[in-house]
Amino acid sequence: MIKFGSSHDVTIDQDKIQQLLAEIQSDPMGGWFNLPDDYDQDELFRIKEAAKAIQQNSDYLVCIGIGGSYLGHRALAEALGLNQGTKLIYVGNSLSTREYQRVLAELEGKDFSINVISKSGTTTEPAIAFRLLKQQLFQKYGDQANARIYATTDQAKGALHDEAVQNHYTQFVVPDNIGGRYSVFSAVGLLPLAVAGASIEELLHGAKLEKATLENPTASAAVRYAWLRHDLLVQNYDVEVLASFEPCLSQLSEWWKQLFGESEGKRQQGIFPASVIYTTDLHSLGQYLQDGRRNIFETVMEVEASPETSLIIPSLDSNLDGLQYLEGKSLDFVNQKALEATVQAHLEGGIPVNEFKIPDLHEKSLGALIYCFEVACALSAKLSGINPFDQPGVEAYKNNMFQLLGKPGY
Amino acid sequence: MIKFGSSHDVTIDQDKIQQLLAEIQSDPMGGWFNLPDDYDQDELFRIKEAAKAIQQNSDYLVCIGIGGSYLGHRALAEALGLNQGTKLIYVGNSLSTREYQRVLAELEGKDFSINVISKSGTTTEPAIAFRLLKQQLFQKYGDQANARIYATTDQAKGALHDEAVQNHYTQFVVPDNIGGRYSVFSAVGLLPLAVAGASIEELLHGAKLEKATLENPTASAAVRYAWLRHDLLVQNYDVEVLASFEPCLSQLSEWWKQLFGESEGKRQQGIFPASVIYTTDLHSLGQYLQDGRRNIFETVMEVEASPETSLIIPSLDSNLDGLQYLEGKSLDFVNQKALEATVQAHLEGGIPVNEFKIPDLHEKSLGALIYCFEVACALSAKLSGINPFDQPGVEAYKNNMFQLLGKPGY
Repeated sequence: MIKFGSSHDVTIDQDKIQQLLAEIQSDPMGGWFNLPDDYDQDELFRIKEAAKAIQQNSDYLVCIGIGGSYLGHRALAEALGLNQGTKLIYVGNSLSTREYQRVLAELEGKDFSINVISKSGTTTEPAIAFRLLKQQLFQKYGDQANARIYATTDQAKGALHDEAVQNHYTQFVVPDNIGGRYSVFSAVGLLPLAVAGASIEELLHGAKLEKATLENPTASAAVRYAWLRHDLLVQNYDVEVLASFEPCLSQLSEWWKQLFGESEGKRQQGIFPASVIYTTDLHSLGQYLQDGRRNIFETVMEVEASPETSLIIPSLDSNLDGLQYLEGKSLDFVNQKALEATVQAHLEGGIPVNEFKIPDLHEKSLGALIYCFEVACALSAKLSGINPFDQPGVEAYKNNMFQLLGKPGY
Repeated sequence: MIKFGSSHDVTIDQDKIQQLLAEIQSDPMGGWFNLPDDYDQDELFRIKEAAKAIQQNSDYLVCIGIGGSYLGHRALAEALGLNQGTKLIYVGNSLSTREYQRVLAELEGKDFSINVISKSGTTTEPAIAFRLLKQQLFQKYGDQANARIYATTDQAKGALHDEAVQNHYTQFVVPDNIGGRYSVFSAVGLLPLAVAGASIEELLHGAKLEKATLENPTASAAVRYAWLRHDLLVQNYDVEVLASFEPCLSQLSEWWKQLFGESEGKRQQGIFPASVIYTTDLHSLGQYLQDGRRNIFETVMEVEASPETSLIIPSLDSNLDGLQYLEGKSLDFVNQKALEATVQAHLEGGIPVNEFKIPDLHEKSLGALIYCFEVACALSAKLSGINPFDQPGVEAYKNNMFQLLGKPGY
């Protein structure tokens, strides 16, 4: 589904890849690998029923979550350009009062429901957000408030699970064998996306088609990308810039940064993940990429299909602006040429460039892309001898914070 | 005004700094340095008059510009949280049809004016945007359209200047001795900010106060930051991460990335500039920063004042979520402790940490911060023997693109 090319040649050891794929699949945290094939059809049905109910009674779904409970569904909602029906709004991903006030002002006078997404229910940011938003919800809906709370959490235990049982919130499951940053194809991502109007079957279908490409590993985009990244790292390319020419993909880049940064940034190793949106950033970081330090490689996401409606550059009597040569051409044509020109310029400037081609920005293609990145990330970490599924460093600031806040036991 | 501290000690050579400041001031592109002291009062008056007219007849001001003609005013408008009166909306900073369609849908049925910002008037992205938005403006306002166009461009020559004269657009000046990324205190930034309701005198006043700190260079935040960055680069710290705990500062980080990346990323040198918003990214890039490659240093922007209205963490009967120890505390208090905890954790993890303290997010403080960064950037580049005011690499993709598009002469 997803095509991949690179300026950089590699020879892939197929046996090695097959061994690593087997390891991933049998890892206690490898549950995401088979999700596109094995999806629980009852859960899928329940997600769609809940989505219908929320669409009928809510202008907004307030999504409470941080990290892997936040980035994936936001990335997909923005890439898909969902703007009909119930809107998604995000809280619990920061501790900024200014940001809360912006969100609360937007909710003023609107009907809303809450989807609180947390494996444990005790992560500080979403737990605070849930207290604050529950307060709003109860002020507005009184006895009816509990029916507007959807908890995506552990199947059997934990603070949020217990509260959900006590108060009869509708519950969905964060599976035990799937970590946050690999969870977008579970209820973590699928419920908000269904509410916002995405076809979640098509997302899973795209992921499944991409999974099938792994049967011939040396031709698979995920495998080739993983092998290349590792090869570039060995050659001391230690900064990767993910580039796209569509602003609606900027949140997908944020999701990608978590996926790769949190999977690989361990034991003083790993490629530092950064992102740009072009042509915006060609007038910003473009100078650095063209002429700065040569420890960078670039990975470009190209959308193959033109947008459904095109914009044509209008004709004018005067050619003062020098654009006459573009009159009658579509804006998308110019964007496409900017992409080709940038790849060429960066190659000439000594930057290795990889390129993903995504057929379009619909569910099937984006599902395939997300799955492709997940597999590539797990393989890439394993090629460096790093466990892609833990995140020991995330605890360090938390422990300090609990001490400073006077949390009992710290 | 702006306070600066660091985990890293340096001894500043005051004579060297005074020599470099003199060079900056006398540079043909150093016009921004004295802008806070020398601002043309007639221009300031004209900006405020134009802003009043736009506020009276427009729901939106469409800001057309890219790079330095775009990032600075957007950064300040978002940091200030301006959301009363005329809204700013941005086009011409990409070639994405999907992004244009989003903007055009938002303008549907609304009154708007255009501020086209371009030194030459022939930069591809804003020139295309201007053609497309003029078309919309003329369809809506006919003969009255020209009165709604405000051109910020060269004083005497160029495509946009000539068109503005022919059609009697209201004109403002991009000074010859100020490059795009240092232009936010010229009409480039001040007109949109005045329209959105900012006090532009206070912005300039803050910049002027910060400029005054340069009289005692070794105590100035700008000088100390510049010297430290250079010192860290010499020790092979070649990635800088700008961090803040307020999502409304994310566009300011984008502006900062252009400022430093475009000034220093030359001759295969320079620190790679990246940015994060915490605590969001502590659950994403946080793992990498804590445990990944140790070629990174971090610069934190701390806002000293609490927000004007605070949010208090509510009490509940149950302590299932374990937050009882935070009941009655303000959210901002928790955010502040998260900041202290993060700095401590990253120092323990081996990352040098610098810290800016900004009194609040009002005009005077933000004006001071922006000016501080501008001076620091110019000094930092010069300490590495790099010209902070050119951007030779930006032409590479443009030349390729003009060839691919069949532009006459390429």
